[in-house]
Amino acid sequence: MDEFTAGHLEAIRKAAERIAARVRRTPALPGSDLAPQLVLKPELLQPTGSFKVRGAFNAVLSLLEHDRQPAGVIAVSSGNHGQAVALAARTTGLACVVVMPADSNPIKMAAVRALGAEVISEGITGANREQRVLEIRAETGLTLVHPFDSWDVIHGQGTIGLELVDDVPDLGMLVTPVGGGGLISGCALAIKALRPEVQVVGVEPELAGDAAASKRSGRHESLPGAPATIADGLRSLSIGERGFEVIVGRGLVDQIVTVTEAEIEAATLTAWTRLHLAVEPSGAVPLAAFLTGRLPRPAAGRTVLVLSGGNADPALIARLMARPAVPISDAPLT
Amino acid sequence: MDEFTAGHLEAIRKAAERIAARVRRTPALPGSDLAPQLVLKPELLQPTGSFKVRGAFNAVLSLLEHDRQPAGVIAVSSGNHGQAVALAARTTGLACVVVMPADSNPIKMAAVRALGAEVISEGITGANREQRVLEIRAETGLTLVHPFDSWDVIHGQGTIGLELVDDVPDLGMLVTPVGGGGLISGCALAIKALRPEVQVVGVEPELAGDAAASKRSGRHESLPGAPATIADGLRSLSIGERGFEVIVGRGLVDQIVTVTEAEIEAATLTAWTRLHLAVEPSGAVPLAAFLTGRLPRPAAGRTVLVLSGGNADPALIARLMARPAVPISDAPLT
Repeated sequence: MDEFTAGHLEAIRKAAERIAARVRRTPALPGSDLAPQLVLKPELLQPTGSFKVRGAFNAVLSLLEHDRQPAGVIAVSSGNHGQAVALAARTTGLACVVVMPADSNPIKMAAVRALGAEVISEGITGANREQRVLEIRAETGLTLVHPFDSWDVIHGQGTIGLELVDDVPDLGMLVTPVGGGGLISGCALAIKALRPEVQVVGVEPELAGDAAASKRSGRHESLPGAPATIADGLRSLSIGERGFEVIVGRGLVDQIVTVTEAEIEAATLTAWTRLHLAVEPSGAVPLAAFLTGRLPRPAAGRTVLVLSGGNADPALIARLMARPAVPISDAPLT
Repeated sequence: MDEFTAGHLEAIRKAAERIAARVRRTPALPGSDLAPQLVLKPELLQPTGSFKVRGAFNAVLSLLEHDRQPAGVIAVSSGNHGQAVALAARTTGLACVVVMPADSNPIKMAAVRALGAEVISEGITGANREQRVLEIRAETGLTLVHPFDSWDVIHGQGTIGLELVDDVPDLGMLVTPVGGGGLISGCALAIKALRPEVQVVGVEPELAGDAAASKRSGRHESLPGAPATIADGLRSLSIGERGFEVIVGRGLVDQIVTVTEAEIEAATLTAWTRLHLAVEPSGAVPLAAFLTGRLPRPAAGRTVLVLSGGNADPALIARLMARPAVPISDAPLT
């Protein structure tokens, strides 16, 4: 194990201790209804309904170890990261500001407010929000918790990889969604350090395929504009600097595959009706890749799909359930 | 421990060994999003999506221990029991007939057929199906697997109780749905044998409140006709003879409470949007009783809700999601 990998593994182990009392050790569920070689890691069972609490708690608790009296934290998010940071701040008694574009889903804004955070949305757009955050930080001294381009956040997400190494002795391949790259980077660091033979594969919407493009070209590629994928947690224009180093630079991720919007919808519906897990579209992309045969064949062992979150838009689910594009539970392949 | 209880506990332990390779040991999930004292037992994660596989496998495997060449099995069911018996028969290479009323949900008929069972529905109604089954048994020699009034089936369901005694050290109260009474009887036998101080509570739809009525009157009460509850797994007209003995005669169930249709709908939606578990209405009645404050206050320890199944009608879910009667995820009370 080289120094880079060893250092990050140590940091992920520390993160696991730090957050143990705050997040769930989610079970590794056999996926026998769909395929005997499948294991599901249902991160949608976390507090606030997504894996984001792992990174958020690690970042906030690390901050408190280094600064006894921080002014508070600030996050930019229209989704799960905002709720996770708000929960971590409330739990530790810190002030929290979440900057959300004015056209964000009002249900998600209400969820962040219900967790005690201040929401700033007036005049905020996707284009100006980073600038607004810099201004607010300068004015207030709040500490930014980045959704993915932060080692503390990446190490928190990596605790999923540690748990899987322990809980799935015959682990052959790990499959996660890819947005900003924090989740897969953390998992890859843990798994390649401990079990280098295990394949690590990312899945992106075809409409947001910047990580797949970066992996192909070896350069840090960006999308020209916000992608219109229903996987609203995976709309970032590019992966972070740190993710690029892990995924492409050091090659710790073996492959990134893409799935279409129709495939994501079908996988979401399949998760709800066949696995009985209420996943959001962003969390269903690994299942979409599995169901469509886009995953590489593992050399050995079982394939783990990380179902990363469950905060689906009820209107979308109503539409999928009313007009199923795939057969519903007519063949429970147990 | 009296002889009755000791004998049944022994049979439940044997059932647990018998079915171990065929069913899942479902996790005991902390329910911190709704309340820190709650634990969820997600039986919707079983093969075929409900706890029914436990009793079905125990009955079919027991049959094979006593009869090396059985003609096969027959079940009467419009729902989860039929799928469970079909799976158990297919797994063990037995012939299987499932008698379903002609107006059963075509999706559920297709699911039973997909598991290799023969479906008999022509001319079958709720009123004549028991008679038809007697005739078919006489003609074919198939063995009936009753959905609830069978000790083998009750002992299979009781393995849930055994698992909870192991997995939840501070178990204070167990709450299950009540239809024909097989699930709660098995659980009560296991739990009262091992941890007599733990409260066992059943939940029924108010429209199908025969068990609550029996518990009050001390007599074996029946409904005058099929109840129109959306909890379609809990529509039996009365509990079985064996369930009556366990629940009322020996008093191993402490209390049966009822919930309204609106409360069942709200709990189903809450399970999907806040717990991210895609439960069916019949499996949501314990959550409905918890959310509405109908459960007794446990003297100590944690309250376990058995979420018994996940085979919800997609049209119902589409309706609930399109017009939520309760707020959706606007206050993730983690």
